[in-house]
Amino acid sequence: MSDTRTDASTFNIASDRAAYLEAYHAIRGQTDALAAGLSDADATAQSMADASPTKWHLAHTSWFFEEFVAAPILGDDCRFHADFSFLFNSYYDAVGARHSRPKRGLLTRPSLETVLDYRSHVDGLMSEILAAGHPELDDLVNLGFAHEQQHQELLLTDILHLFAQNPLRPSYRASPPQGETPSKAVALNWLQYGGGEFTLGHSGPDFTFDCEGPAHTVLLRPFALANRAVTNGEWLNFMTDGGYRTPRHWLSNGFAAAQAEGWESPLYWFYEDHVWSTMTLHGAQPVNMAAPVCHISFYEADAYASWIGARLPLESEWERVARRHPLQGNLQSSGHLRPIPQTQNDMAQPAGLFGDVWEWTASPFVPYPGFKPANGAVGEYNGKFMNGQMVLRGGSCVTPANHIRPTYRNFFDPDKRWQYAGLRLAKDI
Amino acid sequence: MSDTRTDASTFNIASDRAAYLEAYHAIRGQTDALAAGLSDADATAQSMADASPTKWHLAHTSWFFEEFVAAPILGDDCRFHADFSFLFNSYYDAVGARHSRPKRGLLTRPSLETVLDYRSHVDGLMSEILAAGHPELDDLVNLGFAHEQQHQELLLTDILHLFAQNPLRPSYRASPPQGETPSKAVALNWLQYGGGEFTLGHSGPDFTFDCEGPAHTVLLRPFALANRAVTNGEWLNFMTDGGYRTPRHWLSNGFAAAQAEGWESPLYWFYEDHVWSTMTLHGAQPVNMAAPVCHISFYEADAYASWIGARLPLESEWERVARRHPLQGNLQSSGHLRPIPQTQNDMAQPAGLFGDVWEWTASPFVPYPGFKPANGAVGEYNGKFMNGQMVLRGGSCVTPANHIRPTYRNFFDPDKRWQYAGLRLAKDI
Amino acid sequence: MSDTRTDASTFNIASDRAAYLEAYHAIRGQTDALAAGLSDADATAQSMADASPTKWHLAHTSWFFEEFVAAPILGDDCRFHADFSFLFNSYYDAVGARHSRPKRGLLTRPSLETVLDYRSHVDGLMSEILAAGHPELDDLVNLGFAHEQQHQELLLTDILHLFAQNPLRPSYRASPPQGETPSKAVALNWLQYGGGEFTLGHSGPDFTFDCEGPAHTVLLRPFALANRAVTNGEWLNFMTDGGYRTPRHWLSNGFAAAQAEGWESPLYWFYEDHVWSTMTLHGAQPVNMAAPVCHISFYEADAYASWIGARLPLESEWERVARRHPLQGNLQSSGHLRPIPQTQNDMAQPAGLFGDVWEWTASPFVPYPGFKPANGAVGEYNGKFMNGQMVLRGGSCVTPANHIRPTYRNFFDPDKRWQYAGLRLAKDI
Amino acid sequence: MSDTRTDASTFNIASDRAAYLEAYHAIRGQTDALAAGLSDADATAQSMADASPTKWHLAHTSWFFEEFVAAPILGDDCRFHADFSFLFNSYYDAVGARHSRPKRGLLTRPSLETVLDYRSHVDGLMSEILAAGHPELDDLVNLGFAHEQQHQELLLTDILHLFAQNPLRPSYRASPPQGETPSKAVALNWLQYGGGEFTLGHSGPDFTFDCEGPAHTVLLRPFALANRAVTNGEWLNFMTDGGYRTPRHWLSNGFAAAQAEGWESPLYWFYEDHVWSTMTLHGAQPVNMAAPVCHISFYEADAYASWIGARLPLESEWERVARRHPLQGNLQSSGHLRPIPQTQNDMAQPAGLFGDVWEWTASPFVPYPGFKPANGAVGEYNGKFMNGQMVLRGGSCVTPANHIRPTYRNFFDPDKRWQYAGLRLAKDI
Repeated sequence: MSDTRTDASTFNIASDRAAYLEAYHAIRGQTDALAAGLSDADATAQSMADASPTKWHLAHTSWFFEEFVAAPILGDDCRFHADFSFLFNSYYDAVGARHSRPKRGLLTRPSLETVLDYRSHVDGLMSEILAAGHPELDDLVNLGFAHEQQHQELLLTDILHLFAQNPLRPSYRASPPQGETPSKAVALNWLQYGGGEFTLGHSGPDFTFDCEGPAHTVLLRPFALANRAVTNGEWLNFMTDGGYRTPRHWLSNGFAAAQAEGWESPLYWFYEDHVWSTMTLHGAQPVNMAAPVCHISFYEADAYASWIGARLPLESEWERVARRHPLQGNLQSSGHLRPIPQTQNDMAQPAGLFGDVWEWTASPFVPYPGFKPANGAVGEYNGKFMNGQMVLRGGSCVTPANHIRPTYRNFFDPDKRWQYAGLRLAKDI
Repeated sequence: MSDTRTDASTFNIASDRAAYLEAYHAIRGQTDALAAGLSDADATAQSMADASPTKWHLAHTSWFFEEFVAAPILGDDCRFHADFSFLFNSYYDAVGARHSRPKRGLLTRPSLETVLDYRSHVDGLMSEILAAGHPELDDLVNLGFAHEQQHQELLLTDILHLFAQNPLRPSYRASPPQGETPSKAVALNWLQYGGGEFTLGHSGPDFTFDCEGPAHTVLLRPFALANRAVTNGEWLNFMTDGGYRTPRHWLSNGFAAAQAEGWESPLYWFYEDHVWSTMTLHGAQPVNMAAPVCHISFYEADAYASWIGARLPLESEWERVARRHPLQGNLQSSGHLRPIPQTQNDMAQPAGLFGDVWEWTASPFVPYPGFKPANGAVGEYNGKFMNGQMVLRGGSCVTPANHIRPTYRNFFDPDKRWQYAGLRLAKDI
Repeated sequence: MSDTRTDASTFNIASDRAAYLEAYHAIRGQTDALAAGLSDADATAQSMADASPTKWHLAHTSWFFEEFVAAPILGDDCRFHADFSFLFNSYYDAVGARHSRPKRGLLTRPSLETVLDYRSHVDGLMSEILAAGHPELDDLVNLGFAHEQQHQELLLTDILHLFAQNPLRPSYRASPPQGETPSKAVALNWLQYGGGEFTLGHSGPDFTFDCEGPAHTVLLRPFALANRAVTNGEWLNFMTDGGYRTPRHWLSNGFAAAQAEGWESPLYWFYEDHVWSTMTLHGAQPVNMAAPVCHISFYEADAYASWIGARLPLESEWERVARRHPLQGNLQSSGHLRPIPQTQNDMAQPAGLFGDVWEWTASPFVPYPGFKPANGAVGEYNGKFMNGQMVLRGGSCVTPANHIRPTYRNFFDPDKRWQYAGLRLAKDI
Repeated sequence: MSDTRTDASTFNIASDRAAYLEAYHAIRGQTDALAAGLSDADATAQSMADASPTKWHLAHTSWFFEEFVAAPILGDDCRFHADFSFLFNSYYDAVGARHSRPKRGLLTRPSLETVLDYRSHVDGLMSEILAAGHPELDDLVNLGFAHEQQHQELLLTDILHLFAQNPLRPSYRASPPQGETPSKAVALNWLQYGGGEFTLGHSGPDFTFDCEGPAHTVLLRPFALANRAVTNGEWLNFMTDGGYRTPRHWLSNGFAAAQAEGWESPLYWFYEDHVWSTMTLHGAQPVNMAAPVCHISFYEADAYASWIGARLPLESEWERVARRHPLQGNLQSSGHLRPIPQTQNDMAQPAGLFGDVWEWTASPFVPYPGFKPANGAVGEYNGKFMNGQMVLRGGSCVTPANHIRPTYRNFFDPDKRWQYAGLRLAKDI
């Protein structure tokens, strides 16, 4: 039911140019595959300023290769359209002016068809460049791969948000056969870990985002980590116990957000005909009480942990545990496209560290000691966002399997709920 | 170059059932024709809360017939889809709950194709009903005709606004041959009218909106009315004289709006390569300095009049003049889809009273003495909006020719600019 | 219990210079008297952007005389303080830049004491000028009188709003003896009036605001006017009948305002210990069910009229009736400082046309035909506000008795509630 | 010119009850002394939601003792006024409902005089309790001392903000003699520190805030710290180099804030007559280019560090250095009430670690490992704010000398500017 991640180095080490080109097409093709079945209108609409249209994801990822790889080598004449840099630059100030983010959904032109042509055009340029071999560009190409995969996840996340605004509750994909989903989760167990020095972060030649390094040693205290994520059923206990209305469990900003936005359950949940249901990429579905809770904010995760007398893990604690375990789980390629109950025969082993839901940590997204952003415009990729956001770890059911790794740091504002985010408890021992 | 309106009573007097049915199909077909050439995405996007998607206009006008004519006769089983009343009710509280107005642009489903199927379905129901003859419904059917035509105009107005947000500045329709457009406007002349009693408003059996009556007598003072609308060239004088930055010409609310929204020219104007251009339904075009100024708010119209030492006409003054003149002008059927220079051989006759631009008046939109809204939900059509808005008269280049009439009262908030609205000066004598 | 207004012409005709000077001091002294008993803090705070601090009213009215009367004659050296024009100009663009309106409450300096010194200083200058006799300034001085009196009313209105924000519910003045207040209102009766020509507005040499003219003839239709204002008890019926939650009674903008601001009763009402009470200038008091309802918006007044099957009067209808009746009522000088039950032995005569509550009319505040603002900065007094506001007539329990008259047009935005405003019903006959 | 802090344990160890009582009165008396000279109006106004009126600070600190110390012992009858808990509770949800924070400035009643009576009343209760000896309350009393001192600083910070909104630019206190202020700062020097284990945070019996512990060991890397804070003159270089308009120096949220709020210099600076001046507690004063820059946000501090190629210190780095140095500096008791140039004969020693300006660090305000909030309502003191804020260290020119210590963690949102906050640079070595 969940897949084991294939060797990530396939795409990261460019020793074999042919394989590299193949990897390029595989990743690009997966993006196209995710967009298949969406109409021009589906691909155009933007449901909120945080989300982007599918068409924009398709075009922006192409622009990334065009802007940072193709144009510097082939010259500006290679560009598909003179205005596309303005339209599809996301946030790179060093590149220049750009279209207003909240107005992305008003770009009914170019059409989806033209955007797909744009993708083909860029793929042609990149095939030429990768075939010619430009090892000096490997870092940027690798970044382009990772970037494309991030947007694959965002594409799915944003489509769910869009469809959830529609009273018709459309389905993005048919549900996989029910039989494949475990019916219950492993019982909760606290796994204990000793304290001491731990080297956090990435080092070595493989590609990672700049924010995953430098590797550096930290001192951990002994801690316990839950063997699985908090389930919807457990979350319902929090709800029925008045968790959303009891300020003492909450951070001050969190309770203010909950009040202002009227939070009473995870995002997308609704109570109809005496049943809790939720919007998913398969349309409205009953909440699976054994599956990890999803679409909650950091504030909710933190309040839950406080309510139950535990806490969220530090990212260093999470990484220490995750380093020891195989990179497998309910990731995008499993086809579930929603969290499923986390099972594990051995209760002494953690379940679901990777996949299902991104796990909110107690760690603010700040630079590791000695962090330096990359040179050039791509230095804006992560560094300028290192304020006010919280780190999430482990990937989700919509994360590409060969995109995630133990050192991967995702980050979102603490009040955001549309990501596939849940929580795993920790405590001091 | 401009057309004479055919007999409005064609559609209003239901003496001939076959002609009535034909009229139904003519009006409905015209809406379809206006939407032709727009993509699913074009038809879905909503550029601001004031505007609606094309798809929504197409569906809402169909819902109007379904809700107010078909369902009461044929029963709820005749409805195309159980949720469409929720999706496509605009503002009729008496009908029930409805989709949030600012979220109309997120309805990527139903698709444009499904909405066109919905239109066909309703047309089938209406054909049946009109063929059967239900004279008791004539008032509602006539209202449905007028309603459909209002939305034809709004569809065009809203598409222009949407396309104007797109940096690619798309064109909705190819421009008509340039030769058909007069190159200059008639010289400005003040036409003088005596005072006395005048019967304002509609009476008689023909269809009008409820707000056009009751007819009632008012006392007018002698006044002069400009023989044509203010032109873009004249407006440019106001701009270069600092009109937008001089508070003494402005109403207090108007100047505050101008400052808050950064008004420095009519909406859609932009200065590029030393030329003033403007977005039109034919894409970006040079401003035609001889044509009536368009896409201005009431506040701007009022400030211009103050600046030049004149005033806006009362709606009673306007109607008094318009009653005496043929209902012709640059209306939707001319195909210009933008204001053109107003010509007139006889300077003692007004030019362009109908068509080109809606003319802001000095009259707030309030009920005429003795006004009673219609019974039932359609009583919400106009009555509940009789506050805070200003009356406009005469129709525009996107108004259907057989929709406008001398007693027609259009109304918008004084700060709205996306309508095809301009001004004609008046003064006391 | 209510006083008859003394001859208004005392202050308006400047034939007797000594009386004129006396009038000046009487009016100025009344402002001081109203501020007596307020602390420096009371006089400094600003409870919302619409309201102004007492200290500001005291200073601004002095600035008015300094700016428009004293400085043009005596030169700028006569000014009390170089910065006070910046601090205490309200909205006269022609005079220059000014302090931000919503920040008036942050001016803890100058102190109340200094502001009173400023008043004395200006009174000295004005005594000198009025003693010297400058008939050419009479219009401006008369305007200064009327202006001062408007601010007397606003001072009381704004203090009530301020005190109503304070959980301690302070009292501005002790209540007058209860015995003086009638215990019930005259029964509701419809007074009928014929239609025809009526000359609306002021003409003649007496002072009025510019917006009260020019006098002009209008055609009225026969109408009926209620013999008294709507009472609190009647309003409670509207509330208990769900009036605040039923959209069909409301203008669309009105219902939106009621929902957005959570209106469920008149402003200042609160339900405590099973009793409806309300904040007054005498602190919290039980709602007097026989007294006119007060502190309602135009939207609420209109909704009530719609609910009960009547309408609001036009300002022309109101003025036609008021012209025939003595100018007496529960005005500021009665000392009640709140509306009291309207009594009348003769049910064929209207009660309470003047005083108690300003009566919302159905008439937007627009210029009368032929209106021209005064020359100079004082032309901004009324003219630039002739948009979006509704006319109120008749004065209230906090209006100076010699300030009100039948032609007086007060005006406020339709959603404002902090004025002493109520309603009197009208209907067609 | 700067004072050495007296023994903090005076107030923290309650071995001598008489000294404890004396300490109580000394601290309380200092608050009164700071408020002396402010008018009732000065003490009432609230210049923004983040700030509180002087009167509120005076009352809230008294309420703290009444609520948490006196009432539990003496019963609710000891309370001065039944409504004051509602009015003067700041944010303790466990205590109950409270007055709306942004409306604190509307409480013109109780008067300043009544609030001072309230203070006396509470002082009477506390004298009785402290004289009786209640060692079990020492923790709460000590917290009350620290709380009172925090509000002393806030009182001054908030008064400056209030006076800075006043175009008259009032002065809170006369300037101290100019001769006492050094005319230039020590030259910039980088002090180098080795890496390794460091025990961060407080342990031991002395009072600290809960957030200063538990003490725990962290690993530091070698680093350099500037020997003094960044000066106004250095900041001017940043400004003239376009620092405020160059996004690449800024965090993304920071640049957005700078644009949205129009930041072009530190808060309170203004350029007039060719000179940069700034508002201070002594009114408008020329900017002292040798003194530390003050009234900047974390975002600005971070952008400056980025611009100059350095970074902000971690709070652990700062504490490591500060632990070794005497607790002296330009604190509140020096009477300067503004930052002054930092001098130091020995360039190998840091200057101004304590006092002058709070120094923004790169550390988000998060709990130390093992942190547990105190029991009861006072557990809300710090814990619920551990999100989204940044740590500042070292105290400022308005911090009481016996309030600050090396482990002290102050915290504010990264966009706040009204605190006496500046920066000291750090870098990796």
